[in-house]
Amino acid sequence: MAGSSIGRYFTVTTWGESHGKAIGVVVDGCPAGLALAEEDIQRMMDRRKPGQDKYTTQRKEEDQVEILSGVFEGVTTGTPISMMVRNKDHHSADYSNIAEVYRPGHADYTFDTKYGIRDYRGGGRSSARETAARVAAGAVAEKILARIGISFDTRVTEIGGIDASDEEAVRQFLDQRMAEKDSAGGVVQCIVHGVPAGLGDPVFEKMDANLAKAVMSIGAVKSVEIGDGFAAARSSGSRNNDAFAAEEDGRVIKVTNHAGGVLGGITDGSDLVIRAAFKPTPSIARTQKTVNRNHENTEIEIHGRHDPIVVRRAAVVVEAMAAITIVDALMANMHATMDGIEQFYQGN
Amino acid sequence: MAGSSIGRYFTVTTWGESHGKAIGVVVDGCPAGLALAEEDIQRMMDRRKPGQDKYTTQRKEEDQVEILSGVFEGVTTGTPISMMVRNKDHHSADYSNIAEVYRPGHADYTFDTKYGIRDYRGGGRSSARETAARVAAGAVAEKILARIGISFDTRVTEIGGIDASDEEAVRQFLDQRMAEKDSAGGVVQCIVHGVPAGLGDPVFEKMDANLAKAVMSIGAVKSVEIGDGFAAARSSGSRNNDAFAAEEDGRVIKVTNHAGGVLGGITDGSDLVIRAAFKPTPSIARTQKTVNRNHENTEIEIHGRHDPIVVRRAAVVVEAMAAITIVDALMANMHATMDGIEQFYQGN
Amino acid sequence: MAGSSIGRYFTVTTWGESHGKAIGVVVDGCPAGLALAEEDIQRMMDRRKPGQDKYTTQRKEEDQVEILSGVFEGVTTGTPISMMVRNKDHHSADYSNIAEVYRPGHADYTFDTKYGIRDYRGGGRSSARETAARVAAGAVAEKILARIGISFDTRVTEIGGIDASDEEAVRQFLDQRMAEKDSAGGVVQCIVHGVPAGLGDPVFEKMDANLAKAVMSIGAVKSVEIGDGFAAARSSGSRNNDAFAAEEDGRVIKVTNHAGGVLGGITDGSDLVIRAAFKPTPSIARTQKTVNRNHENTEIEIHGRHDPIVVRRAAVVVEAMAAITIVDALMANMHATMDGIEQFYQGN
Amino acid sequence: MAGSSIGRYFTVTTWGESHGKAIGVVVDGCPAGLALAEEDIQRMMDRRKPGQDKYTTQRKEEDQVEILSGVFEGVTTGTPISMMVRNKDHHSADYSNIAEVYRPGHADYTFDTKYGIRDYRGGGRSSARETAARVAAGAVAEKILARIGISFDTRVTEIGGIDASDEEAVRQFLDQRMAEKDSAGGVVQCIVHGVPAGLGDPVFEKMDANLAKAVMSIGAVKSVEIGDGFAAARSSGSRNNDAFAAEEDGRVIKVTNHAGGVLGGITDGSDLVIRAAFKPTPSIARTQKTVNRNHENTEIEIHGRHDPIVVRRAAVVVEAMAAITIVDALMANMHATMDGIEQFYQGN
Repeated sequence: MAGSSIGRYFTVTTWGESHGKAIGVVVDGCPAGLALAEEDIQRMMDRRKPGQDKYTTQRKEEDQVEILSGVFEGVTTGTPISMMVRNKDHHSADYSNIAEVYRPGHADYTFDTKYGIRDYRGGGRSSARETAARVAAGAVAEKILARIGISFDTRVTEIGGIDASDEEAVRQFLDQRMAEKDSAGGVVQCIVHGVPAGLGDPVFEKMDANLAKAVMSIGAVKSVEIGDGFAAARSSGSRNNDAFAAEEDGRVIKVTNHAGGVLGGITDGSDLVIRAAFKPTPSIARTQKTVNRNHENTEIEIHGRHDPIVVRRAAVVVEAMAAITIVDALMANMHATMDGIEQFYQGN
Repeated sequence: MAGSSIGRYFTVTTWGESHGKAIGVVVDGCPAGLALAEEDIQRMMDRRKPGQDKYTTQRKEEDQVEILSGVFEGVTTGTPISMMVRNKDHHSADYSNIAEVYRPGHADYTFDTKYGIRDYRGGGRSSARETAARVAAGAVAEKILARIGISFDTRVTEIGGIDASDEEAVRQFLDQRMAEKDSAGGVVQCIVHGVPAGLGDPVFEKMDANLAKAVMSIGAVKSVEIGDGFAAARSSGSRNNDAFAAEEDGRVIKVTNHAGGVLGGITDGSDLVIRAAFKPTPSIARTQKTVNRNHENTEIEIHGRHDPIVVRRAAVVVEAMAAITIVDALMANMHATMDGIEQFYQGN
Repeated sequence: MAGSSIGRYFTVTTWGESHGKAIGVVVDGCPAGLALAEEDIQRMMDRRKPGQDKYTTQRKEEDQVEILSGVFEGVTTGTPISMMVRNKDHHSADYSNIAEVYRPGHADYTFDTKYGIRDYRGGGRSSARETAARVAAGAVAEKILARIGISFDTRVTEIGGIDASDEEAVRQFLDQRMAEKDSAGGVVQCIVHGVPAGLGDPVFEKMDANLAKAVMSIGAVKSVEIGDGFAAARSSGSRNNDAFAAEEDGRVIKVTNHAGGVLGGITDGSDLVIRAAFKPTPSIARTQKTVNRNHENTEIEIHGRHDPIVVRRAAVVVEAMAAITIVDALMANMHATMDGIEQFYQGN
Repeated sequence: MAGSSIGRYFTVTTWGESHGKAIGVVVDGCPAGLALAEEDIQRMMDRRKPGQDKYTTQRKEEDQVEILSGVFEGVTTGTPISMMVRNKDHHSADYSNIAEVYRPGHADYTFDTKYGIRDYRGGGRSSARETAARVAAGAVAEKILARIGISFDTRVTEIGGIDASDEEAVRQFLDQRMAEKDSAGGVVQCIVHGVPAGLGDPVFEKMDANLAKAVMSIGAVKSVEIGDGFAAARSSGSRNNDAFAAEEDGRVIKVTNHAGGVLGGITDGSDLVIRAAFKPTPSIARTQKTVNRNHENTEIEIHGRHDPIVVRRAAVVVEAMAAITIVDALMANMHATMDGIEQFYQGN
């Protein structure tokens, strides 16, 4: 089944395995006339680079993105933008362990069950490396959004239940987890400013529904919240409803934003507020009970350097998925009214 | 834009407004050879009927579903199943209030901003009544799933932050909310038994991603959790990883199910565990600050009987959306391997 | 599989069997703000009414279309437009013949082989009656197109190889076919005026490719031509190339239109020229050799009144499919350039 | 708009411009477990290589395809197969002519009108070179089809109206066209053997409708015929209907195959018969009247070596598009019946 594409108008298709020849993405439906250079992509991809602190892997991945099509003389042409990152050679690596034994918390078992075959090297298609392709596409999406005044404020708000802004507490916590050969999860919050009212559809193509899918499709995400999220279920109507108010210039605002920028699936002109809960990195150095390919009980020890948290590198992936989703909704909304269509074609 | 369909293989398209002539649904892609009668649909639709206790509206909606196509001599034929429920006459009703003034927490403002026109009667397309069409489709999906041993256990687990199994506490809480002209939210949990391993795709069409979209597309849902959800972000790798174990018959099981039945987007053979957080009903009898269609500040009082909670009636809608999503994944998975395809067509 | 929808932005889903309770269509993605009444639909549906001359069936089908949703106070609201035509009661009819024996040239055998079950009454889902639902959707499409100056000139150009404008020759020919208990095919030509340049996509979503699919999806069509069609294959580059010329006002025209209005999949501002070849009606009164459900050799005589030609009633179906396809392309084109997007959202 | 993908289950996405860095294709939805090597692809791509006779260009294109993902140890894994062909360097070329002046019969004018920008080098995205990517995908499709006994017999049947099997007449004809600085069109026929009955859907996803789109989406195609095609419109019901007959082993065959293997949109077990009419190559050495980017009248002379016919190189593209379409239908058909689904999942 074909499951590597997302977006109906601005369609992003990723391909590639962690330790194959390359990973890449095709962005189809990008409008013509957008200035776009490899540096635009690289800048956003660098935000997910490992090795930026001692809690993320020290491996040197120098992902150099190459634009292969869709851009002519520095400007998009409306044709598909193909981007690729060559993988490094990993000839010497020894994967015999994970080839035969299923890592708990990973997709090894489910891949084998579904496909009967699996590129086990470095996680293959299920590697977090696949998200690099998403970020490349997200960079294109953000350039489009910037042109109409939409911007992002994305941050890790929580690490292992600790407020991420308390850096000292986080440091102590992570040191302890590393000492215990254990790992931690966290929460990413993405706030989107400047979103016009009217994006999204009233039923299945609700803006929040599509954001939920896009963000939940990131490997380690186990929950998505919009606005107050779960807390709304514990609030009351009188507190949770956002009062409307008219500004002097006639613009309508919401006095509060418990809804997180969406009413009935359609953006209301407030900030979009999205939160994603990431599970702890499943690769831990402790011995774990599991089974092998022959369905026999065994144990596994996962060697190598592993991040005790992925959430820091994952923040930009959440943002990328949000950006891709919003561009799609932006396009979809352009033919919502007969007046809009008529205006576009008048005088043809 | 066309946003009233969900599912790529088993495609569900709903239509209709709360106070229009009828609401309905077209289920396209239902396999031929499924015994299906109107009573099968009706039984599931009755689970969202109002007036089952004093906290849900006493309005009499006798939604009689009619199957218009796709079933011949009691069996599906593989062609689209069109189902319809006629709406009652509402001639006498007075909607002048909500026609002109935007209800906080509702889609009135966003509809007008997007479309410039809105069927304001009873919430129009954004009414919870639209979910009746989803439930009708869900009933078809559940009949398919029953044939391969998949069943559902759906319940309200929390009302306004109170454990829903403590009925006395819930009763007192809701009485108080009603007295205060206020409303409450809640949490629905849907557990799916018997799901085979292998459903879902590794990247964007992950089973959990599609469940998130399907459930988040229900009007009042503000968060979706899979397995431990947000709690996973506060757990550790060693606790959150589910150990695999081999049964004597060679079957692989997970000793725990923090993952909620999905690893890397693909079902692992454990129960699927989905939770949805519903915001409090936005329609409350208190006076609220808002604006009117002319973007002038005003107040609104919403009259009529309104449920202080919707979550009880909504549980079956969560289940319906899950069922629709699983049928879609079930079909998609059938062409995952060359062996599967060959076996299907051998001897043709 | 879900195969009853067409169009990605303006999505048309038909449902219903010839002798079931009703047939219908859901038009999803229709822009808000279009004046629409049942008479608009009825007028176009009447063009496929039978019994308009002695060569088309004398059955009285008074297809009264009912709009069930998506229109409020005479104007579309942007939500799905559901339309339905109730079928007449056919209780007394005797279908034992076609229930058991496969009619040559019909879909009886292929339905049974695919689905194992078939609503055989009057052709079921494969009946030409399904096209009534397409015409209803086409009527909505044409109202949209009229607003930007697009109109249709559709006619039967050939009947059984005879120029359809020679009415006397056609009459003699058809009388002879009827006398011989035989039937004839024909050719429908649809010319679309006022199509702006720029619609369609360069690769798979070419305007001509989508027109080909839309028109070939009409039951009896065996070939689709764009512009000079097959004759182009026998022409030469120097004759077949259409020279461009600049008008005094700077508008670019093509001096000829062998291309039929499409270059590289994108409309060029000339008239779209589409031709469809219809096979002869397969239902003929002669005895034919065939097999039955048990795969035994047998013969069949098809009784009842059957049109010796369907092409006259089918012309409006070709037009409807073209209209639906063009609306879809019209919408798709609105986000082709960054300037177009920026202009739409500026000042938000 | 996103228009570079085709197929709903077996999804093919092409990218790249003629003179950009590379062209490529992502095949998503290929089943796991298919033996696949670069030589499998190369063999089919070589069938569209230029320079195989004096009527096709003598340019040396040594298109070496590289598989970048989706294949592990020589076998497909179920993940997207990314394939790429690097373009040769064309630094020295002079495109000033076609950058400024619109070639008749080409997409230059329509691209500029739609997108406002165009990679004019060698035709850019609209170059026939894009079809190399389709052929690479087609090679994957044919390997799948071979596994269930489906094979292709594709040939040029007509060149400039002359029976292509009369080689001497064709040679004289083409020599004359070249002498006249003119070009010719032709007809490709693709016959598909071994197609099981039951593929395709009764309404919009008819097998013939999808074949028509797939084949019409090839640049120079102006008409598609199924079975007898246009000739059917001039036949009679009694001659055009294909009688069914039962073989001794109970298999049903059609005594003739005017229908070309499809009844009511569903394959009937006979050979699929598809014909495509190609227009004459628009690039001719004669001076032609046209306009420039400033919409001023001018003339153009197209230099360089151009094929007087493309149809020979195009035959394999027709076959590739047919193969892609059939694989898609093959997958779609697997969930047509409840029995089929149940059988697949039984014992899960």
